[in-house]
Amino acid sequence: MSRLSMIYPDFQVTLREVGLRDGLQLVRSFPDTASKLQWLKQEHAAGVRMFEVGSFLPASRFPQFSDVRDIVSATKSLPGAHVAALTLNERGAEDALQANVDEMVFVLSATEGHSQANTRRSRLEALQLAGRIAAMRDERGPDAPILTIGIAMAFGCSIEGDVQATEVLKLVEASLEAGADVISLADTVGYAGPKAVGALMADARKLAGATPLAAHFHDTRGMAIANAAAALDEGVRILDGSLGGLGGCPFAPGASGNVVFEDLVFLCESMGLATGIDIDRLVDVRKILARAMPDEELFGGLARSGLPKTQRWLATQA
Amino acid sequence: MSRLSMIYPDFQVTLREVGLRDGLQLVRSFPDTASKLQWLKQEHAAGVRMFEVGSFLPASRFPQFSDVRDIVSATKSLPGAHVAALTLNERGAEDALQANVDEMVFVLSATEGHSQANTRRSRLEALQLAGRIAAMRDERGPDAPILTIGIAMAFGCSIEGDVQATEVLKLVEASLEAGADVISLADTVGYAGPKAVGALMADARKLAGATPLAAHFHDTRGMAIANAAAALDEGVRILDGSLGGLGGCPFAPGASGNVVFEDLVFLCESMGLATGIDIDRLVDVRKILARAMPDEELFGGLARSGLPKTQRWLATQA
Repeated sequence: MSRLSMIYPDFQVTLREVGLRDGLQLVRSFPDTASKLQWLKQEHAAGVRMFEVGSFLPASRFPQFSDVRDIVSATKSLPGAHVAALTLNERGAEDALQANVDEMVFVLSATEGHSQANTRRSRLEALQLAGRIAAMRDERGPDAPILTIGIAMAFGCSIEGDVQATEVLKLVEASLEAGADVISLADTVGYAGPKAVGALMADARKLAGATPLAAHFHDTRGMAIANAAAALDEGVRILDGSLGGLGGCPFAPGASGNVVFEDLVFLCESMGLATGIDIDRLVDVRKILARAMPDEELFGGLARSGLPKTQRWLATQA
Repeated sequence: MSRLSMIYPDFQVTLREVGLRDGLQLVRSFPDTASKLQWLKQEHAAGVRMFEVGSFLPASRFPQFSDVRDIVSATKSLPGAHVAALTLNERGAEDALQANVDEMVFVLSATEGHSQANTRRSRLEALQLAGRIAAMRDERGPDAPILTIGIAMAFGCSIEGDVQATEVLKLVEASLEAGADVISLADTVGYAGPKAVGALMADARKLAGATPLAAHFHDTRGMAIANAAAALDEGVRILDGSLGGLGGCPFAPGASGNVVFEDLVFLCESMGLATGIDIDRLVDVRKILARAMPDEELFGGLARSGLPKTQRWLATQA
């Protein structure tokens, strides 16, 4: 069994908790290591198996990820859990390989403007860098982590505005050539609606063949769950989310972040896609976040209202 | 041109603002008549054309609807606007006919338990009552209002739990026989996911033939926009919503109400379905609600984040 199919078994939904990474990217305050470990362990106990836990970036600029090595090794000690980290350059990839992550995530921008503004690199330079990280993976041999290439702003860009699907598809092809094991399409600023998601995922599917697609949605305009449903309808089986929708922008009060993880679980289960996750236990983990990050607004429907009183859900509470 | 096709033109989306009715059903405080009129006029100026504005019920028990006659006639004076009111018994239908509403809305429960608890009537008695209201409509002749029959708890019931689709479909058939011009399926307590919505709408479509289907979603568990997308995918072209998602339950703090109207507009437009509604102007109307109902929480993504900076949306702001 390949590493890829151990982390992301075919025909099964894997929901990735990215709260410990994307959820903390822009926060004013962040949990201490002990709280992060509690958060991880409680979500693992609720059935979550894939965690993106941080980024290998200079701790001076990103203190929220200074404990990423500890968090990676703690995650790896949880039975059945897999761990991903953002690796945006060769130094980060080296660190990630040394930490023995299961998945390295590299991110490209769909637009030249965002690529330059965000990383001071062109898209071509970013693709070349991705290729070098893939080569580092290959050197590691059979126990190497998988490499996911994410395409940010795939459905519209806050800098360039419109993004043509043809541009994104070119980057999908180039990412496959660079050696991606998974291609993730991200609606970074919440511009997408479900029709655009379905169309782009279907086209990307044709290019990607057996390489799995993943989806990363932000709920900026309330469309994230509908977009997730559209991705699931197109056969996407790897989706990111964050508990309580953590990951908003401190410069836009009330701007919610990633799609709410617990609502995403409910969506999948309502569509007959088993996640292995206990929603009540998952919702309960919000208490850890609320204590550790009292200034952050948590979002979500399941936390507000609980599970429906139907046989299917009552059975989970027996 | 029939009254029905004037109110609900074929192959065009009509979004019904139900905030003045469902949004006020359970609130602790409600806007005075002047604020309601301001709300109506500003939404009309933003392009909204269909308003459900109240219920013909005893003013002693429902003071929030005591001005329903004034609101009905004010709505009718707005160019191109149509007005609906809830008419849950013959007395209400008489009043609605006298007020010259464009649409009477009668509501059945999908389950016997909710029917008895909510109205002290069996579902059969409710269907017979609907038939008598339809007869009152028929007596009025060609300028009669249309009659919409809504089926509450169509996707699950907070009293009985599971609701079988076959039960709902029997009620759809019976409602057609009773004389419904429109059949509205309601996820009253937010139990549905998009797959259930798509399946039930497809089955109901086969029974309803040329009779339009409508959809009424609550965002109790964050699924409302995804459910609306599923209904639109099945060809449903009449959807309810309320500005800011008004319509939560005062006994469940934070429990959001109807699907957020402005987000619903964005969803439709993102799917290429023109609504004729200016989202920025619509969002602006929330100020009237916030002033008139300072204790009510308003929800929604568009209000938080504004329109995307793409050509399609920049053009609307020229």
